[in-house]
Parts: sequence; structure tokens; C-alpha cells
Amino acid sequence: MTTVAAYAAPAPKAPLERTTIERRAVRENDVLIDIKFAGICHSDIHQVQDGWRPGTFPMVPGHEIAGVVSEVGPGVTKFAVGDRVGVGCMVGSCQECDYCKAGLEQYCANGGPIWTYNGTDKDGTPTHGGYSEKIVVDENFVVRIPDALSLDVAAPLLCAGITTYSPLKHWNAGPGRKVAVVGLGGLGHMGVKIAHALGAEVTVLSQSLRKKDDGLRLGAHHYYATSDPETFEKLAGTFDIVLNTVSAGLDYARFLSLLRTDGAMVNVGLPEETVELDLKSLFGRRRVMTSSNIGGIPETQEMLDFCAEHGLGAEIELISADQINDAYKRVQASDVRYRFVIDTATI
Amino acid sequence: MTTVAAYAAPAPKAPLERTTIERRAVRENDVLIDIKFAGICHSDIHQVQDGWRPGTFPMVPGHEIAGVVSEVGPGVTKFAVGDRVGVGCMVGSCQECDYCKAGLEQYCANGGPIWTYNGTDKDGTPTHGGYSEKIVVDENFVVRIPDALSLDVAAPLLCAGITTYSPLKHWNAGPGRKVAVVGLGGLGHMGVKIAHALGAEVTVLSQSLRKKDDGLRLGAHHYYATSDPETFEKLAGTFDIVLNTVSAGLDYARFLSLLRTDGAMVNVGLPEETVELDLKSLFGRRRVMTSSNIGGIPETQEMLDFCAEHGLGAEIELISADQINDAYKRVQASDVRYRFVIDTATI
Repeated sequence: MTTVAAYAAPAPKAPLERTTIERRAVRENDVLIDIKFAGICHSDIHQVQDGWRPGTFPMVPGHEIAGVVSEVGPGVTKFAVGDRVGVGCMVGSCQECDYCKAGLEQYCANGGPIWTYNGTDKDGTPTHGGYSEKIVVDENFVVRIPDALSLDVAAPLLCAGITTYSPLKHWNAGPGRKVAVVGLGGLGHMGVKIAHALGAEVTVLSQSLRKKDDGLRLGAHHYYATSDPETFEKLAGTFDIVLNTVSAGLDYARFLSLLRTDGAMVNVGLPEETVELDLKSLFGRRRVMTSSNIGGIPETQEMLDFCAEHGLGAEIELISADQINDAYKRVQASDVRYRFVIDTATI
Repeated sequence: MTTVAAYAAPAPKAPLERTTIERRAVRENDVLIDIKFAGICHSDIHQVQDGWRPGTFPMVPGHEIAGVVSEVGPGVTKFAVGDRVGVGCMVGSCQECDYCKAGLEQYCANGGPIWTYNGTDKDGTPTHGGYSEKIVVDENFVVRIPDALSLDVAAPLLCAGITTYSPLKHWNAGPGRKVAVVGLGGLGHMGVKIAHALGAEVTVLSQSLRKKDDGLRLGAHHYYATSDPETFEKLAGTFDIVLNTVSAGLDYARFLSLLRTDGAMVNVGLPEETVELDLKSLFGRRRVMTSSNIGGIPETQEMLDFCAEHGLGAEIELISADQINDAYKRVQASDVRYRFVIDTATI
């Protein structure tokens, strides 16, 4: 056991504060990682606020983790001390079901994966995330960060990157395909970069044109304001994929109307409440309404390699640990371009 | 022009009554069909009642048409007098867009197809359906009914058959795949037969066990009552496809919970009102909520050939034309096993 400094929410909705947590001693297949950077994901805030399900407190959020291996267990074969590595939303799963064997650990049939924080480890202890100095993780849930990516801009790829990459690949974003990205935030800005790099024609649909210059710089070919009703008339029936990164509820029928036949609206932003849907908006063009949950470990590695090859890191604002609570407020106000990343040396 | 007898609703919600309509003279590529049988589809009732969109009255419903060719235009190459043929929901489309060229005329990009009734033909006249003695149709919207299928049990295949066949094929029903069919009515009973013949493991989900013997006889391997809460516990996460044929609104989240990862709920029964949906029920297993609109002409022919090969006709109650209004009431009361078919000789 090692005692490490961390930032935790002591109770639901409470501000995060500095504390210490225990990390287990490195086991046979474990890797000890000195965390260098941890991204702040909107879902960190959801969970600290107990928005999705009753959480376990104190809670150390953080599932966008980039660091360097500082110790390996005797059975570790994939990593060595000094390797630049990442950890995303999962730190374990059954490894035996069809989904785990297929590299879809996020859909593990035996109770789902073990989440990096706000989860329960195999030994029954609560898991704690990346807002801390070190973490111990089974090597099967560690990925390699290519040298071409700086650790700070790589950290958000472990959630925001894979969450957008996976559905874009699953629904065949690529040359000749038109992708709309709804919302230009942490997820959305990576969706734009990745869809562009995959060769798709990319349109940002944002409430206003406030971030238009950014959107075009990040790789969007077109940028429309959803506050303008003409946007929906003009773009009706044109997209193969609408990647919705907005957590607030939307008028989904309007966005579905933008899909061509067999197009898919993939919601990676999820409202807490139920939504209204007119099934007839799916009918006439065989449209799909769906969602997507991060990506598996092999695909996460594939995404990091893809991002390295195309020079895609997240756009970040680097902060010190004492700025976390302010950063949370700014994320909720959509006032971040485009991801806060904690320099964990400041914890 | 030919005057033919027909049954029409003179106004929205009015009972159908005997009348006469005009059929155009056979043109270059037209086929004149002596209608022998016409199925009664639930959507006939929706449209007579103006449930979906303002209809054109008087309205002659009927898009499950089986008959015999009695005259062909000079340019007709596919059919000859005496051929046994069918007409489904469409009698025309642009024939030029990517969808029409791909045999997906139901998704025609130039304003959609011309519907068999309650539509507007290219010359601006209203279209009239199968509750009539004869119909004139462009040969490109006529399909061949194989000799192995009787015309009476073939008629409902033109809508109920293709509406279930197309999504079952699209979502890969077949050996090793589990299909649930929700509702054992006109569409549902064909869904069971076709899914079984495709090699899938088929489960009927019906409100009660009242039709269980029928369901098993039609090809279902399992039959559960949705009024029993244990059904949803027992079957959670097990199906690849949930084919929902029920038009009344359901608790969709409960049915979505029955899908395994990447499973699709295909709604071919569509409620008139919007529905409540929890997007989180799609998230954890990358589930799909979708719909499907009949099938294209080539696929309709494929379906008829498949049904002939496997000996699949609809289960029908043959009625005379003067029973149409009673039949409508019985369809609305779910009191039909499983499709009313009008013997058009009685018109």
C-alpha cells in the first residue's frame, strides 16, 4: 500500500479538496503509474453531483489519465518502467465473456467493467481516479501513449477521444460521408478533429456562431447555429451521422430530421431526464437513434495511434489542482476551450 | 379510362361504401391487373381515420393486392397477360435518385414514392388502392407471385410480409440470432414465420398467453406475456432484434432492456403520439432504436420468392366486401387471426 495525495469530493455536491488515498501494492500483472496529467470530463461533475446514480464518497474523479510507468509487477509483459501510458474509464473487467474477448470490455456481460473511479474493485474496495499522484492498474487496462503526443494533450483522449472515435468508426465516418457534430465542447472538439482526420465532411451544429473560427480551425468544413431555424431547413436529410455531444436535452426530432436514409444519431451526451421522441421521425428514412459508451481497450490504443499519426491532441487549458472547483463551474457554464487538464504535480 | 367498382371511405372516419372509380387507360409501361384479393392493413384504418396526415377523400384503401394481369402496354417487358402478380404500398417513384437506383424506392429522395392509395399520381390525380376490381400500375412497381403461393394468402405479404422481412434482413436475423416479435397480429404473425424461416431463434412477446398455441404453431420457439413482470427480468439483455409490430405506445425502455449489446429495436408499429425515451437505455449496450418502412421493389420480389420457397403465406380470414366495416372494427379490437383479405369478386 502506498499513500498518495489526491483531490476528492468528500460528499455529493461538495467542493473537491486535497486529501490522501491508499493505492494497493503492485500485484503480478499491475502497473504503477506516476500520473502527470488528468483531464476534467463533464461526467466527473455529473458523478460528483450524484446525477446518474448514487456514488461512493469520498470520490476521487478522473478517467483521463496520462503518466509514466514507475513500477511493474513480475507478470507484466506489455510495459516497462519509463513507458508513457494512459488509463481511461475502465481499470478492469471479467476478461472472460464474449465482449471482453472481443475487446469490448465496456460492454462486459458479467456486470460491466470496473470503472476507474466511483466503481468497486475486484477486492471490494472503491476505485479512485486520476486526480491523484499515482494509480495502480492491471496492465490489460493500460494503453501506450505514442511519443508524438504530449502527455498533457493526450490525457483527454482517454475519454473524450475514444468516446467520439468509437462511434465515428462504428457508423463508418470517412470519405464521402457527412458528419454533423452537435456541440463544440470537450467531446465535440475531438469529434470534429477525428471526423476530419477520418476523411468525412464535417459540420458543427452549435447554439451560436460564437466558436465558429475555432470550429473551422479544428477541422470543420461548415458551421451552423442551431438557434437559426433556417439551419434545420437547409440541412434537412443531409447527414450520415449526427454525433450529439450535448448533455442537455434537445429537440431530438429536429436533429433526426437532418439525417439522410440509414443515417444514425449517436448520443454521447446524455440528459439525466427522459426525452420525447416521435418514432415517425425514424420511420420514413430508416433512421437510427443510438448511443455509445467509450470504446474497448484495443480500440482505445488504435485511437491513440490514429491521433498520433494525424497530430491530434486535445485543445486544453492546463490548471493546477487548486483550480479544480473553479474549473467545474466553468465547465458547467460551457466556458472552456476545450478541456481542462490538471497538472498533477500541483496536487 | 375504365370505370371499376370499388369500396371507398367518402370522408374521414366514415364507413366504407360501394362506389365506382376511374382507372387510366394502359400506357406504354403499364400493366392492367384484375384484382383478386386485397388485404386489410391496420394502416388502411389509420388513413381512413386521418390519423397520420390529412388524407384525400373519397379514399379507396388497399395496398396488399394480388391479381392477374389482363392487359399490358406496348413497352412492358416483364409481364404478360395471365401472369399472377402483386402490388404493394408503392405504384411509382422518380426512378432516378440514388435510392430508386438502389432498389430502395420507399426512400426515394425526390419527394418519396407514389403511394398506392391516398397519394398523388404523376398526373396529379389521387391514387386509389386495392379495394377495387382493377388497377393500372407501372410494371416497375409490380411483382410476380410465385405459383407456389395462393393469391389469397399472398396478398398480405405485399405489406405485412415485406414490412417484417425487410428489417429482419437489414438487422441480420438468421442462425445464431435471437429475435423477439412484439405483438402477434397481422405484421407480427408474418414476422414470426419469416424470422423462423430465416433460421433465427424466435420469441413472441404478447400482452397475454391467449394466442400462445398459435404463436408456437407459426414458428415461435418461445412465447411470453408482457403483462408478467418476470418476462422482462428473465429475458433482459438477450435479443439481437426486437421487432415491435404494436402501434399503441409501449414502455419502450422496458423493451430496449431486452436487447443485448448492439441489438436493435425496430418499430414497424408506430404510435400517433410522441413517446418517452430514456437515452441511457441505449447507452450501456450501444443499443439501437429504429424503424423501417416496407421494403423496395427488388426486396419485395425477393421476399415473395423466399415465402414461396418456405411455404409461407399469411394466415387469413377471407371476407366479402360488405364485411369491410365490420372487419375494421375487429382489427381495432385485435380480433383477427391474422389478416382479413377481401375477395374482390364480391365488390
